[in-house]
Amino acid sequence: MAEFATKEFGMSVLVVGSTALDTIKTPAGEGDRLLGGSASHAGVAASFFAPVKLVGVVGEDFPEQYLALYKRRKIDLAGLQVAPGKTFHWAGEYELDMNNRRTLATELGVFAEFRPELPDEYRRTPFVLLGNISPALQHHVLDQMRTPRFVAADTMDLWLNTALENLLRLLRRIDALVLNDSEARQLTGKNNLVVAAREIHRLGPRYVIIKKGEHGSILSGPNGMFVCPAYPLERVVDPTGAGDSFVGGLMGYLAGSKGPLERNLREAMLAGTVVASFCCEGFGLEKTAALTRAKIRRRIAALRKIVRV
Amino acid sequence: MAEFATKEFGMSVLVVGSTALDTIKTPAGEGDRLLGGSASHAGVAASFFAPVKLVGVVGEDFPEQYLALYKRRKIDLAGLQVAPGKTFHWAGEYELDMNNRRTLATELGVFAEFRPELPDEYRRTPFVLLGNISPALQHHVLDQMRTPRFVAADTMDLWLNTALENLLRLLRRIDALVLNDSEARQLTGKNNLVVAAREIHRLGPRYVIIKKGEHGSILSGPNGMFVCPAYPLERVVDPTGAGDSFVGGLMGYLAGSKGPLERNLREAMLAGTVVASFCCEGFGLEKTAALTRAKIRRRIAALRKIVRV
Repeated sequence: MAEFATKEFGMSVLVVGSTALDTIKTPAGEGDRLLGGSASHAGVAASFFAPVKLVGVVGEDFPEQYLALYKRRKIDLAGLQVAPGKTFHWAGEYELDMNNRRTLATELGVFAEFRPELPDEYRRTPFVLLGNISPALQHHVLDQMRTPRFVAADTMDLWLNTALENLLRLLRRIDALVLNDSEARQLTGKNNLVVAAREIHRLGPRYVIIKKGEHGSILSGPNGMFVCPAYPLERVVDPTGAGDSFVGGLMGYLAGSKGPLERNLREAMLAGTVVASFCCEGFGLEKTAALTRAKIRRRIAALRKIVRV
Repeated sequence: MAEFATKEFGMSVLVVGSTALDTIKTPAGEGDRLLGGSASHAGVAASFFAPVKLVGVVGEDFPEQYLALYKRRKIDLAGLQVAPGKTFHWAGEYELDMNNRRTLATELGVFAEFRPELPDEYRRTPFVLLGNISPALQHHVLDQMRTPRFVAADTMDLWLNTALENLLRLLRRIDALVLNDSEARQLTGKNNLVVAAREIHRLGPRYVIIKKGEHGSILSGPNGMFVCPAYPLERVVDPTGAGDSFVGGLMGYLAGSKGPLERNLREAMLAGTVVASFCCEGFGLEKTAALTRAKIRRRIAALRKIVRV
């Protein structure tokens, strides 16, 4: 566990996804024009464990303070395009139990025309996280990569409904698929998650990671299953981005750790879980961005005690 | 883990609860006049780890084969009353996802007048499981016990709604309360389970065990929390009695194990989880009753691998 902490930098992670300004209302309060999007949450989460190369697009209205936040986290922004127009804006409201939310507004802005072009120096990044964007764009990024060591892709129900063929083709090109429980059920038509995971393996990926929100996550791979609980929080402020933080933390941990990937994967699940838990304790990236490696390490140790028999 | 297997008998467990004939329909099939009830499921589950003393009531229609089943499991039936009238009958139907069920019939029969009277030789049993019956009856059983070492009580929403005061008084007399997540929320008015568990500790019990069905269970106690996943099943046939099997297996394991209780509790959670998983794979007690210690041991070992980081 301590490996990521004893060396400043392991291998780097390329993170592609959306970069957004979020307006969020939860039972705990509200926030406006918060830094959000899959690439922001995953990139910042990964940055605590490994150097991150970000790929995304923002508009001319993107606040300087958020660029400063990325820079404080030493995130490589060579792949962040600034395009004429407005940054992707999402607005949503959570119900009392926070497992349900409704979208109030989705203004794609410059994201509508997003076509990720990777700087040359990005193309040999060993770890690649294809954050939640359309499978076509995920393919386009992969096409530009040269012999990545480990590729994980996140997805969402929107792409199951509108881009299934492209997604299925992507599954044959990646090492790990990350999706939530209802998406796993939708993708496979299997209600049972053990069966669903096996079906997804048949579609391509060696590793399947199913996110279950407050009920934790499941890793299925060549060494069997690993079930990881969520970190027990007394208070959830805003769950937006928790899934992206989870997979970002996981990929960062893998990239930043020595030794065989298979051996590090379960620890990486804990690391992702812990960063996701911090994410839920503040609006947008407010808690995540203020983290330290020491805080993360302490919570990983606490989570270990919670799962130890 | 192997301790329970290397010695034939540890301390014994008293199990009190309902004994019923169940008519159950699930998407996987149906069964009529199946052996059911909280005492049957918990008692048979516990019997794989420790000697069980059963307290319950059946009618004159109770099938001989079910008495034979108890006897095969070496369950002490001195506390099982046979009363004039019919055995408690429950009928229910599960929906497709098996998390929801509706009750089609509840005919209390002889259970309506059940008043547990303990044989003298039961009164010094060190482990006491007050299975899911009214808090008044649970009190009545406890009143007859002499210095039990560890008392756990299960409950259900019915008693929260109709016998709350008696239940609250019971909480001050027991070591462990076992209940499901929605009941924990109802009892405390707290949606967050970490907070709910803490509130329940304030009401009395040193240990709080929250059952979350397919999402596993949580133990909260002096040594912090332990989160135990459900055993991942490919197919659930009938979840009736899984919660009773869980707490029965847990109490049996505790009674049958050497060493300090606190040290054995997490392993006992695994043992209960495993017996509950077998319970779900058949109608009524069909799978559970046919178990062997070797089968249970193998599945506990598999569950260990699933939770090991």
